Formats: sequence, C-alpha cells, structure tokens
Amino acid sequence: MSDLQPDLRRLSLNQMTIDNCTLSQAVDACARSGISWIGAWRHKIHPDPASAGRLIRDAGLRVSSLCRGGMFPAATEQERKKRIEDNLRAIDEAAALGTDLLVLVNGPAPDRDIASARQMVVDGIATIQPYATRCGIKLGIEPLHPMFAAERSVVVTLAQANDIALLFDTQSVGVVIDVYHVWWDPQIYVEIARAAGRIFAFHVSDWIVPTPSMLMGRGLMGQGVIEIRKLRAAVEAAGYTGPIEVEIFNETLSQLPVDQYLSSIVAAYQEFV
Amino acid sequence: MSDLQPDLRRLSLNQMTIDNCTLSQAVDACARSGISWIGAWRHKIHPDPASAGRLIRDAGLRVSSLCRGGMFPAATEQERKKRIEDNLRAIDEAAALGTDLLVLVNGPAPDRDIASARQMVVDGIATIQPYATRCGIKLGIEPLHPMFAAERSVVVTLAQANDIALLFDTQSVGVVIDVYHVWWDPQIYVEIARAAGRIFAFHVSDWIVPTPSMLMGRGLMGQGVIEIRKLRAAVEAAGYTGPIEVEIFNETLSQLPVDQYLSSIVAAYQEFV
Repeated sequence: MSDLQPDLRRLSLNQMTIDNCTLSQAVDACARSGISWIGAWRHKIHPDPASAGRLIRDAGLRVSSLCRGGMFPAATEQERKKRIEDNLRAIDEAAALGTDLLVLVNGPAPDRDIASARQMVVDGIATIQPYATRCGIKLGIEPLHPMFAAERSVVVTLAQANDIALLFDTQSVGVVIDVYHVWWDPQIYVEIARAAGRIFAFHVSDWIVPTPSMLMGRGLMGQGVIEIRKLRAAVEAAGYTGPIEVEIFNETLSQLPVDQYLSSIVAAYQEFV
Repeated sequence: MSDLQPDLRRLSLNQMTIDNCTLSQAVDACARSGISWIGAWRHKIHPDPASAGRLIRDAGLRVSSLCRGGMFPAATEQERKKRIEDNLRAIDEAAALGTDLLVLVNGPAPDRDIASARQMVVDGIATIQPYATRCGIKLGIEPLHPMFAAERSVVVTLAQANDIALLFDTQSVGVVIDVYHVWWDPQIYVEIARAAGRIFAFHVSDWIVPTPSMLMGRGLMGQGVIEIRKLRAAVEAAGYTGPIEVEIFNETLSQLPVDQYLSSIVAAYQEFV
C-alpha cells in the first residue's frame, strides 16, 4: 500500500460538490485553489457544452468526465427508446465539452423485476456503445451503493459493473470506482484487480458515522471510515493513473465559502487520499 | 417460483415490529391474531428469560429466534473478551427462553480497518460455537444491508455470511436471510442456493420508495419493491421450511393500534410473502 500523497495535478473537482456555484464560478475557484480538473454535470453545461468547454480550457483546466448518461430501465419500449436518445445527446455533449468519458448511472427498475432491469442496462449500453466509440467517448459504468438500488441504480457492485464492461471492448466500456459506493464490499480488492485496464475514473469522499443523510451525507476525505488510501493504492496497482475526482454531496459543507471549502478539499486530498 | 400463499402457521412476529408492547402484550396480540411464533429480543425478555419462555408457551406460541448476539469487533483484546462473555450469556438466555436459534448481528469495525474487523467476527464465532452447540443453540449469521456497514455489521452480503458459516458444522452455524438486507444483491439467488442446509431463519418486510429513514423506514410486505415471493420460493427450494419472521422497523406503522397492525401484517403475509 502506497503511503505517498497523490499528485496534486490529479485532483479533480466534481462540480456538484459546489452545486451553489455556476460553472464559471466553479472554474475560477478551482483555478485559484490549484485544482486543474473538473468533473462536469450535464445540467450545469446546458445549453452550450462547447462554450462551457472553452470556458474551462481558457482557465487552464481540463474536464475529467461528464455526468451522466445511463438511466436505461423503463417500463415501456417507447420510454426506453427515449432514454437511448437522451444518452446519444449526452455523448454529443461530452464530445462538445471536450472530455472522453461519459459516466453512466444506470437507473432503478421500473417495477419489482430487478433482473429484467439489469438486462435493460446491458441492452442500453450495447445500443449506445458504437456511437460513443465513433465519437471518441468512453462509457464508464458506475456502480452505486446498494442503498440506491431502488431509486437510482440497479448496478450496485463493482463485480456487476465489471461483468457488464467485459462484454465490450476494453477501450470503449469500463468502470467508475467511487469509494463511497464500494468501500463496504468484501470483494472490492478482488474486483479492482479484475477491473485492470478498464478503470476509467476514481472518485473520493468519505462515509461519515453516523450517516446524516442517505443522499447528502457524504463527508470530506478523512472525516469517515473509508480506507481511501488503501483503495487508491489498489486502483493504481490495477494501472489507473488518471484524475482523482472529489465528489462530495453534503449540504452543510457546500454552504462554506467556496475558497475555504476548496482549500479544505485540497488539504484532505493530500492527507487522506 | 411458487405462487402459493405461505402457510399461516409459519408466520412469526419479530417483537421489535411492535416495540411499544411489552412481551406479554405482544404475545396476547399474536394469539388474538392467529400468529403462532414470536421472534424475541434480549432486552425484552430481561431479566428472566425462563419465565418469558413460559409466558410465550402458555399462550400457545413458540419462539422462532432470539436477537441478538454478535457485535464481536472491538478495539482492544479486553473489550473483545467482554463481547464474547456477552455472547455466552445470550446463548444461556436463548436456551432458557426455549429457542434453538441465536441471531448474530456482527457489529461495525472499531476503526477504518474493515478486513481486521471481519476476521474478529470469524474468531468470535469460532470462540462461542462449541458452547452454543453444547447448549443446543444454533448460531445464525445475519448479513445486514451495506448501508449499515459502518454502524452495525461488517457482514454485508449473503456470500460473506455463507463463507463464514461454511467454516463450521452444518448444524451449528448458518445464515439468517432478511429480504430487506439482501434484495439488491445480484448474487442473491446463487447464494441462497449455496446456503442450502444452513438457512436458519427467513425475515420479511419491504423496501419503500422513497426510503423514509435508513433505520426506521421499512415497509409492510407489498408496500415496496422487494420480490418477496420470489425470494421465499428460492429459500424454500434450498430446503428451508421454518418460521417466516416479519421484522418491520417503522415508526409510523408501529403507532397503529396493535390488533389493526397485526391484522395488516397477516393480510400482507398472505398476499405478498
């Protein structure tokens, strides 16, 4: 296990971490704080992803990923088709923005039948993958914590994300590993090793005890129980050397003055990631 | 998959479902509602488990299990020893109460090192198992939902519970399958089959959408997204024919008049389990 601090040049800020800021404010704050990557969200770069990309590059930053495509399972064929069309738009937006990675959050089941919903995810990815590859966009399957299985994602373990990714070419479909979603998994180190060559992103935050909220209760790295450095070492041993994205959903923290918050993030990144 | 209603004679009420009731009130309400099993909790049968057992049997009920032993991981050798002693007392209480099953909820890690805490669980079970077997008490390892990994249980999947149980004799250590804790797991049907011969209990409730609370947000069967009947069919295909314990933690539901609540439980059991 590496005891080395991660390179500051790999730090990326997922922009929902400072949801109160516009893209322009977020980019300026990152530049002031020495953060050189940003993880973008579609609704934050709407309606003009190309000029959003210019704004980011002009400030000297790069885009680590775009969140999010996915949400494939739906009750009707017609609705599933709409979801596919939306994913194709997301691929266009990622290309226009200037990132090579679209993060897929795969959606809940439309009913009790979780196995069928999981098949809809596989089918959906298979449908959009050729277009994504032609556009130079990689698809990153992000398993979410099982507590989100009913409302956000039927993909809940890295094993499952790996199983899906392995159906596709190594360069086109891979996985996004967020420590908050996977830290509890007894198989996590086995599955990180199995993901070698397909790890497209690595996200960090922390699991606070007690958990203040299922959705908005993530902590700053070091505030909780996740062995973040050990997980980073495993991800690096599996060959990942890309951006490390800080994605914290926390209402209290996001009320802090942005420069103060980003400076805490930089410090926590250096001490605990 | 069985479409048959489960036998009403298998219905057990976990007494925390009606936490407002004393044991005597709970037993009387079960008897009035045609429920013939009760799942007991240690603090509810304190200080005299033998007379609690008589009270239950005199009303014509049987005890499906005693909750809970476990909680093995702790920071110091001394504290781990105290936890072992408490488990030995729990075994005595189970025997005095007149049940053959002690449910193990295995506790959180005392620090960030979840792998070591998991080893403490294995060591703890190995330490108490000989005494439990001599007393005629089976140990049921209950995997909890991963959202409880930091606060209640480092055992979070049925795969993991099976792996531990398989270290011991089939009759002495097995698993407790609660649909609320395991429904999200892509491997659940594989692992239920692997648990054949070692399934010591089956618990039901439902996962409501949206989830009102991590701890007290369970629903009545049928109110949520869990495929309860499919899971029951799998558990029965694996050979389990014992009590089916309703364990609902829900503050709103538990405020209902007890006879009304138990009658809803009986109806939901017949329609959705």
